[in-house]
Amino acid sequence: MKHTISALVANRAGVLYRISGLFARRGYNIDSLAVGPTDNTEVSRVTIIVDGDDYIADQVTKQLDKLIDVKKVMILPEGDITVRELVLIKVKADEKQRSEIIDIAKIMQCDIVDISHTTLMIEFDDRPDRVSLLIDLLSRYKILEIARTGSIALQKGHRSIQG
Amino acid sequence: MKHTISALVANRAGVLYRISGLFARRGYNIDSLAVGPTDNTEVSRVTIIVDGDDYIADQVTKQLDKLIDVKKVMILPEGDITVRELVLIKVKADEKQRSEIIDIAKIMQCDIVDISHTTLMIEFDDRPDRVSLLIDLLSRYKILEIARTGSIALQKGHRSIQG
Repeated sequence: MKHTISALVANRAGVLYRISGLFARRGYNIDSLAVGPTDNTEVSRVTIIVDGDDYIADQVTKQLDKLIDVKKVMILPEGDITVRELVLIKVKADEKQRSEIIDIAKIMQCDIVDISHTTLMIEFDDRPDRVSLLIDLLSRYKILEIARTGSIALQKGHRSIQG
Repeated sequence: MKHTISALVANRAGVLYRISGLFARRGYNIDSLAVGPTDNTEVSRVTIIVDGDDYIADQVTKQLDKLIDVKKVMILPEGDITVRELVLIKVKADEKQRSEIIDIAKIMQCDIVDISHTTLMIEFDDRPDRVSLLIDLLSRYKILEIARTGSIALQKGHRSIQG
């Protein structure tokens, strides 16, 4: 089962090293990790998806809470969160394939952000399962490159990690 | 000066630990880091933005290349790449603020993905400078939470990290 852990951490060299070290030492598997700045320049937000039972997610969260530079950490409540990912995909496309790929892009509502004689680059942000669906749809063509972010997530409504 | 380093790495526990350890030990500053799967389940792609001169970017790339589990690494050519980020922003919004924020969302072309009596959640994917502009525009309102991914990037046209 997937758990979404969200943490506010000090924006300082070494914080990612300590977090990833915790997972490496304990053998916990990170499904996805995303780190980015917040509106406070001293604070970054890390979103980690772990695959495991409730006990493991709980343990990870407690261990993270003990780390220097981790200011706040919680397991986001399943079913009450908005989760998104971003992907750039470069696909080989001649003139015929191009129009087929444009059809897929229209249906899935993605943007085509680059074109060459032989390639198209597609940008897509959506739920992780929809991102995976798009990659599956495009796998009929020759995918040349993919760059994909980890998942980010926020609780719906007024609730926040700050309580 | 910002440099965009892209690496294909083994999708294995500990790889992120080794990469972030290299930066922590040498005191190189990571501006942004994004890691996600590729179409090959055994390979992940890591995009790292480092702020520093050409020499530092070159050193980082050489050191990364020596790491176990790093299959391929290169500095992407400035000016010939598509760079994107994703952000979720929750803003406090009563009825009056709501319509003002909707105007901003329309102009910037972002999606409103959640609404409550007192809040709006906005999803936006674009160039990093445009993401920063949106956050700046919304800072007039009360930003309750931000989750932002690191930057991902691909070379334009047919060129790829695989050569």
